[in-house]
Amino acid sequence: MDVEAFRQAGKQAIDDIADYYAKLGIDSGSIPVNSVVEPGYLTPLIPDAPPQEGEDFATISADYHRLIMPGLTHWQHPAFFAYFPTASSFEAILGDLYSLAIPTPGFNWSCSPAATELEAIVMDWAAKLLFLDAAFYNSSGVGGGSLQTTASDSALIAIVAARERYMALHPEATPELTNLVIYVTTQTHSLGLKAGKVLGLQVRALEVRAEDNYALKGETLEQALNEDKSAGRRPFVLIATVGTTSSGAVDDLTEVEAALRQHPEVWVHVDAAWAGIALCCPETHETLRLTGINSVADSICTNFHKWGLVNFDCSTLWVRDRRLLTAALDITPPFLRTTHGDAGTVIDYRNWHLALGRRFRSLKLWFVMRGFGVEGFRKHIRQAIQLNELFSTLVKNTDILELVAPPSLALSVFRLAPLDLTKDALNTLNSAFYQRLSTRKDIALTQTTLNGAYCIRFAIGAARTTESHIRDAFSIVLEEARTVLDA
Amino acid sequence: MDVEAFRQAGKQAIDDIADYYAKLGIDSGSIPVNSVVEPGYLTPLIPDAPPQEGEDFATISADYHRLIMPGLTHWQHPAFFAYFPTASSFEAILGDLYSLAIPTPGFNWSCSPAATELEAIVMDWAAKLLFLDAAFYNSSGVGGGSLQTTASDSALIAIVAARERYMALHPEATPELTNLVIYVTTQTHSLGLKAGKVLGLQVRALEVRAEDNYALKGETLEQALNEDKSAGRRPFVLIATVGTTSSGAVDDLTEVEAALRQHPEVWVHVDAAWAGIALCCPETHETLRLTGINSVADSICTNFHKWGLVNFDCSTLWVRDRRLLTAALDITPPFLRTTHGDAGTVIDYRNWHLALGRRFRSLKLWFVMRGFGVEGFRKHIRQAIQLNELFSTLVKNTDILELVAPPSLALSVFRLAPLDLTKDALNTLNSAFYQRLSTRKDIALTQTTLNGAYCIRFAIGAARTTESHIRDAFSIVLEEARTVLDA
Repeated sequence: MDVEAFRQAGKQAIDDIADYYAKLGIDSGSIPVNSVVEPGYLTPLIPDAPPQEGEDFATISADYHRLIMPGLTHWQHPAFFAYFPTASSFEAILGDLYSLAIPTPGFNWSCSPAATELEAIVMDWAAKLLFLDAAFYNSSGVGGGSLQTTASDSALIAIVAARERYMALHPEATPELTNLVIYVTTQTHSLGLKAGKVLGLQVRALEVRAEDNYALKGETLEQALNEDKSAGRRPFVLIATVGTTSSGAVDDLTEVEAALRQHPEVWVHVDAAWAGIALCCPETHETLRLTGINSVADSICTNFHKWGLVNFDCSTLWVRDRRLLTAALDITPPFLRTTHGDAGTVIDYRNWHLALGRRFRSLKLWFVMRGFGVEGFRKHIRQAIQLNELFSTLVKNTDILELVAPPSLALSVFRLAPLDLTKDALNTLNSAFYQRLSTRKDIALTQTTLNGAYCIRFAIGAARTTESHIRDAFSIVLEEARTVLDA
Repeated sequence: MDVEAFRQAGKQAIDDIADYYAKLGIDSGSIPVNSVVEPGYLTPLIPDAPPQEGEDFATISADYHRLIMPGLTHWQHPAFFAYFPTASSFEAILGDLYSLAIPTPGFNWSCSPAATELEAIVMDWAAKLLFLDAAFYNSSGVGGGSLQTTASDSALIAIVAARERYMALHPEATPELTNLVIYVTTQTHSLGLKAGKVLGLQVRALEVRAEDNYALKGETLEQALNEDKSAGRRPFVLIATVGTTSSGAVDDLTEVEAALRQHPEVWVHVDAAWAGIALCCPETHETLRLTGINSVADSICTNFHKWGLVNFDCSTLWVRDRRLLTAALDITPPFLRTTHGDAGTVIDYRNWHLALGRRFRSLKLWFVMRGFGVEGFRKHIRQAIQLNELFSTLVKNTDILELVAPPSLALSVFRLAPLDLTKDALNTLNSAFYQRLSTRKDIALTQTTLNGAYCIRFAIGAARTTESHIRDAFSIVLEEARTVLDA
């Protein structure tokens, strides 16, 4: 494909994308939010080997529409309430398009100075947007922020840095690596268990109580630490969550801070992958325990690619002491040495993440923060929270549904709760309820369990969701609830 | 930004990108390949916080040109010969643009069936393009391939799977994790040492000899294994390289296979990040030891985002037994369970990589393999190899430069080598030589060391590099060489 053919095909792609979003805005009813295909649908439709000679781009893009589109689940659909939202904005698409066109692997400052310098600057912008303490700014020269692929990578990096710090403080621990323990709670995202598997370390999931709204309390933490340490185990990191996946719970960071006063060797990583973005609204600070984050977190992560208007991937990770990160990750072979790197006058971001190469992701984050401004972010977050107030009120006003936990920001967790049923019978009923909901193509929801109770999650955040979509979704929920109860 | 504003801004972006590539093709002399900025250039040009209100997109995109462009190193420039090439093709840009517009985190099949199914299919296409054994195809149902972010991630995953397999075979090893050893060679990419740091495991770098062209020999491996095992250490994985970073060396996989016959517990991960793409040309198979790869590799990685025409990120990883991967990485909390996942009728790619979410990367790989076809890939690879034959011949025909290793595909490693100098004096001279070359803005090269000898790397692979760029680059090299010798 030559330059002029690209010019034409690129404009066609832009039109296709604009048309898709226009349709999601005004005619979403014609698009099933959940894909309608069955496993294996694509294999018979595509040859089993690449063509010998190149094909025409018109054929390729026609196949995109014909073969791929029907196999999509539409995460931008206004009736998408499953998992957590995955962001998309025109500003981010444009930022990533520009960055696609100037590939630079970004491992050293000199790979493309603009990529490193813009990342350092916009990470400070993002920290300010979310009211993080100035200790986390790159401009502090001590702490700092960088862009990661996902919250899993961010947590893994934090744990590796925590382990490195622990081993430096406790060299006698080396022969007993198997005694190192990662602390999470039963509500922590699976990234905690996965990090344990990847690193070959034990993970202990601390219990949380329904009456504490599934948040970690200081007492639980303190008791576990005393137990483990007297048994010779070595807890060295806690993954605390601000906005859990199952119910949007916020661990009690004030109590965590107090509990850790006697255990300063424990690194606190705050996983605020979903809820962190809401810190742009001052009215959330108390609920999300901003003061606790700012005083106790050694590292904190939030994903702008969830609720934060920036297309995947854009996971922001801040650390209070960048030297602990680079001490854990710095490898500089001869072929990566540069004059500025040797002089220490620049950031070489390869030492802030797992891999070597990295995309120029700061461009899209910059475009989005400029395009929306602080007020644009707030409006986006507040709109979803308001819509969830509507949904949760509708649930509360029925006599057959109940909220299983208090609504958290833009997430409600509910279930069918007719009177006089045992816990097991309730779970069976709700499983049947969810099975019905999950086969529908006009609404997307997901299920979870909370301390053994089967429940259904309703997460708002797609940019085109309005009050009427919430009312429609609630009607569907209620209709299916009644059908299940009747059966 | 509304749909119509996006339509307009998107087309402007496509025009900007087309213009940029047109200029790189016909007027690259006007673009300095290395960025001309100094550290810290961007800070005074950008406010220190995000704007309160959203800004106009025209202002934002104007700033992209005004502030970012001067801070770029142009990896697509025809005079870029540093590191390894980083790919860019119009087909890949379009594929990624379409995928950007339909964000889907891809962790489960049901997240978007098309994303998982296309990935499974195009990974088989890629395996066929590179003549990998059918054992690595997804369609085999036993082995399989998936897309990773980088070769570092691919190696890390392979090591984690290898450790899991080793621990299952040797449960008695658990109390002695610190005795596990990762094998690399002194020429392995820094990803080996970095994986060791991340996982907290020992890494042993096996020696290679200049007379073996810096390739690992079976004898060295066998001796190390016997030494380590009799000392109670537990080597469990070898990262072998097909095309090392410093000189393009290819480890002797036939001898590796023979050496490992007595040590079947050692997993072989083949890192062919750069050179693997060249396997599309049958004439490389002997040099790149395809037979050895196909018989000994437990896993193999190549980066289409290096020399393989697909924009970053697109690292292809194949394993001989997918169950060893998922045994090491599978975590399925309640909120990720799905009907099809539970039934085992679909691939859930979250269990094939480190994180949970992942981009829809197969789309760009599909677009590129279709747009170029097998013959298009071969033409691209052969052209760079031919240009390197020209460059290496020009070097050999001087009396002041020498090749430090045989030219490998599209990579030459050379140095100044006047008569009668000690090794130290030669290194000092070549360091001065490289310092001069590295301050130029019209050519990009990198340095390395090979068994203590300071040398300069010349890697070809940008799509717009032609014979005249090679001749110009050689003139610059020769001119600087003479200046250094005169001084």
